[in-house]
Amino acid sequence: MNNQRVTIGIDIGGTNTDIGLVNTEGKVIARKNLQTAQYFNAQVYVDDIVKNINEIMHENNISHIVGIGIGAPCGNFWEGTIDDAANLNFRGKTPLKNMLEMQLHVPVVVTNDANAAVYGEMIYGGAKGMKNVVMFTLGTGVGGGIIIDGKLLYGSDGFAGELGHTILIPFGRKCTCGNCGCLETYVSIRGIIQTCIELLEQDTENELAKISREQLTPKIIAEAACRGNEVAIETYGKTGEWLGIALANAVVFSSPEAIFLTGGIVNAGEILLQPTRKYFAKHKLFLYKNDIPILRSQLNENEAAILGAAALQF
Amino acid sequence: MNNQRVTIGIDIGGTNTDIGLVNTEGKVIARKNLQTAQYFNAQVYVDDIVKNINEIMHENNISHIVGIGIGAPCGNFWEGTIDDAANLNFRGKTPLKNMLEMQLHVPVVVTNDANAAVYGEMIYGGAKGMKNVVMFTLGTGVGGGIIIDGKLLYGSDGFAGELGHTILIPFGRKCTCGNCGCLETYVSIRGIIQTCIELLEQDTENELAKISREQLTPKIIAEAACRGNEVAIETYGKTGEWLGIALANAVVFSSPEAIFLTGGIVNAGEILLQPTRKYFAKHKLFLYKNDIPILRSQLNENEAAILGAAALQF
Repeated sequence: MNNQRVTIGIDIGGTNTDIGLVNTEGKVIARKNLQTAQYFNAQVYVDDIVKNINEIMHENNISHIVGIGIGAPCGNFWEGTIDDAANLNFRGKTPLKNMLEMQLHVPVVVTNDANAAVYGEMIYGGAKGMKNVVMFTLGTGVGGGIIIDGKLLYGSDGFAGELGHTILIPFGRKCTCGNCGCLETYVSIRGIIQTCIELLEQDTENELAKISREQLTPKIIAEAACRGNEVAIETYGKTGEWLGIALANAVVFSSPEAIFLTGGIVNAGEILLQPTRKYFAKHKLFLYKNDIPILRSQLNENEAAILGAAALQF
Repeated sequence: MNNQRVTIGIDIGGTNTDIGLVNTEGKVIARKNLQTAQYFNAQVYVDDIVKNINEIMHENNISHIVGIGIGAPCGNFWEGTIDDAANLNFRGKTPLKNMLEMQLHVPVVVTNDANAAVYGEMIYGGAKGMKNVVMFTLGTGVGGGIIIDGKLLYGSDGFAGELGHTILIPFGRKCTCGNCGCLETYVSIRGIIQTCIELLEQDTENELAKISREQLTPKIIAEAACRGNEVAIETYGKTGEWLGIALANAVVFSSPEAIFLTGGIVNAGEILLQPTRKYFAKHKLFLYKNDIPILRSQLNENEAAILGAAALQF
């Protein structure tokens, strides 16, 4: 039997559930996958997670694990539950921590995916050694994770750091949360596409105007920007300006050493990051004299979520 | 000699420096006052503080103190300094902690006034027993203090929680900090007056239009609102709406149990608080299911700053 200290990290998404066996150096030794969307019953889902954990341990000669960390949409740290996640087929409050601990007898930690991401960054990635960090996850939605003094910030009910729902532009774009003007409506995949479409209304001859709304993606816009397409460049310029203001506001709250960005949108690279840094510098309150770098996650994209979840056991 | 455990709390403002002797129950036993504005040299100022501390101890038969807590504009907790406070006549970085410890040989803690205010509220006031609290101080400027898990949030450089400089309305009103749209430009004394004047442009016959800009105050506007003046009511309605959004954004960051408001503007009472609560409830993200009360400070207004500073020694 293999006696190295290993942890299970589980990344729960609406489509996939990734289960990884992670060692103390942050190496993903092995992984399994479940199709989350196939499950309409939480107990059946949990039983299959348990079955996969037993299998992955057996296949890798692992006799015991330190614990299990889980990153999940609407993951509630204090209660160890998933609370009414809109993108899961089993609704209500799912007591994931209790259900897994009953069967596996090791400590289970549940939090949301963005919290797991920033914690993984601190334990295994570019934030190693830092004590105060903010991360924005920029994808379909916008998530946030805040590290204060080396610990994840959960707040009184476990949901601190929902930075995608900071109201950036009062009375602005309608958000899925019911509010208007949330950061998520400007800097997510949907936000970038909407910005581009609004700009195309002033430039109907633009090559991007020939692509239907359904087919337009941040990637297509980023590629057009690289070719010098002015609407595409302005789309990312405005996105960077909004994000820069949001980052300046995050600094005013928690005064981090660095801000990390991750998620599909960040793959646009300098086309997004250059205006983000410019407007962050412009809006950062003069009081904060230290350099606060805006950094991309340094974890491998397809391992980051598992590593983040596994890191919760540290 | 009196052997009760006492602390010195010092509230440094641009006009006055209040020095108080505070016991463990939060009673201000005695106080002294210096005219801050008279001092152009930090060493002379510190020497006079020391002299007053020695006097107040002697007069009250106190042989030793636990320590000294100081709330000051631009008070830097990590370094124990006052950094370039615009409203003090001695500029640059004043190493207040070192200067006082050298002469008095007891621990000195320096922080900004809003941090001291929220800490005092937790030790002696309405936030007793709470672990996660946010406070907004609404006066000439807007300050913020954030308690996370029972501790003041300082962040990496000691200046976390500068909530007055959250950008509330991007590209909005010009702020003294150089940015545009800061919360402080809308919800401070100056902000309320400006809102009223802007509304009066649409209603030049209003009784408030007869008062000059220099003579208009939040108090005059609040009194007019109580008499049913529509511009005055709308001034506080809009102020409450902006403040409500700012409070909702604070919840998204740190998920507090309660939010406290203090400062001169809050004396308007329900005329401000009613719209603030209404718009806070409207904009609070659905995820936060607990009631998060908006409360006024429960410390006596003319003792709060001294108590807050003294509380820093707990």
